[in-house]
Amino acid sequence: MVRLNEIRAGEIAVAEPQQFDAGLIYIGRVHTPWTDRLACPRQGRSDGPLCRIELFEPWVAALDGLEAYARIEVLYWLDASRRDLVRQSPADDGTTRGTFALRSPVRPNPIGTSVATLIGIAGNILTVRGLDCLDGTPLLDLKPDRSLFTPIAPPQHGDFQTDD
Amino acid sequence: MVRLNEIRAGEIAVAEPQQFDAGLIYIGRVHTPWTDRLACPRQGRSDGPLCRIELFEPWVAALDGLEAYARIEVLYWLDASRRDLVRQSPADDGTTRGTFALRSPVRPNPIGTSVATLIGIAGNILTVRGLDCLDGTPLLDLKPDRSLFTPIAPPQHGDFQTDD
Repeated sequence: MVRLNEIRAGEIAVAEPQQFDAGLIYIGRVHTPWTDRLACPRQGRSDGPLCRIELFEPWVAALDGLEAYARIEVLYWLDASRRDLVRQSPADDGTTRGTFALRSPVRPNPIGTSVATLIGIAGNILTVRGLDCLDGTPLLDLKPDRSLFTPIAPPQHGDFQTDD
Repeated sequence: MVRLNEIRAGEIAVAEPQQFDAGLIYIGRVHTPWTDRLACPRQGRSDGPLCRIELFEPWVAALDGLEAYARIEVLYWLDASRRDLVRQSPADDGTTRGTFALRSPVRPNPIGTSVATLIGIAGNILTVRGLDCLDGTPLLDLKPDRSLFTPIAPPQHGDFQTDD
């Protein structure tokens, strides 16, 4: 069962932060078939349903060139998730593990990352497969998949360092 | 050449946001050999130098179980980057492309993502290879690499959806 807002047996919560260190802006919104957290996939699949990513202005011009990549990294903000658990029980069976050993949406900074298959771009709308988030999730960033991307900028010293 | 703060020929900037939509907390700090943006690698390499990731309290307990994964996803905040460019010229040669078609640190929400090789965890310190960021970069999140992680929570309806 997906967590709504409960704390389960064995889970450990810490105090909510009193202030933030940096700020995010929502650059768009993700549209998926899932309007209920109890139906969302645990992990997106590359043959999953078509989803749409809507970009807001002034960021639409920043899409130019992204159509060349078959897969893109999508970062989004899991705004329905609590942020205060250090140990979680995904199966709700009394066993727990640390939050960083899970890909649960519940984390101190609830940033979701997916690698999506890019089907097409038309205006400010991208069509993709492979997402797993709720309909309406705020978008934070889009990047070419790391394995498909070759830096355009000239290499620097660090690119050649392999020693310790 | 790495961008410092200049805007290059052909690049297009938009207005800086006047307010933020969500807040981040720094949960740790990344320690790398690179103290100058002019030396950072463009992309981390799995045989790159050892780097250390320091976790702050109260998040150290959330590491439990992460040691089982040979690769981890690391999210960090590129706090030295400008955020207002929609078109960029990585080679500084007059040609430009959209920000989302690049993995440049300059983006509306400058979140860096890397897949690092996990060497070990001792207390609040992780030793890894494969990072490419400046020494002192704020840490946002750690997760098991997606390709190594199997959800523990029971599947939901969306996990089986492949139709449109």
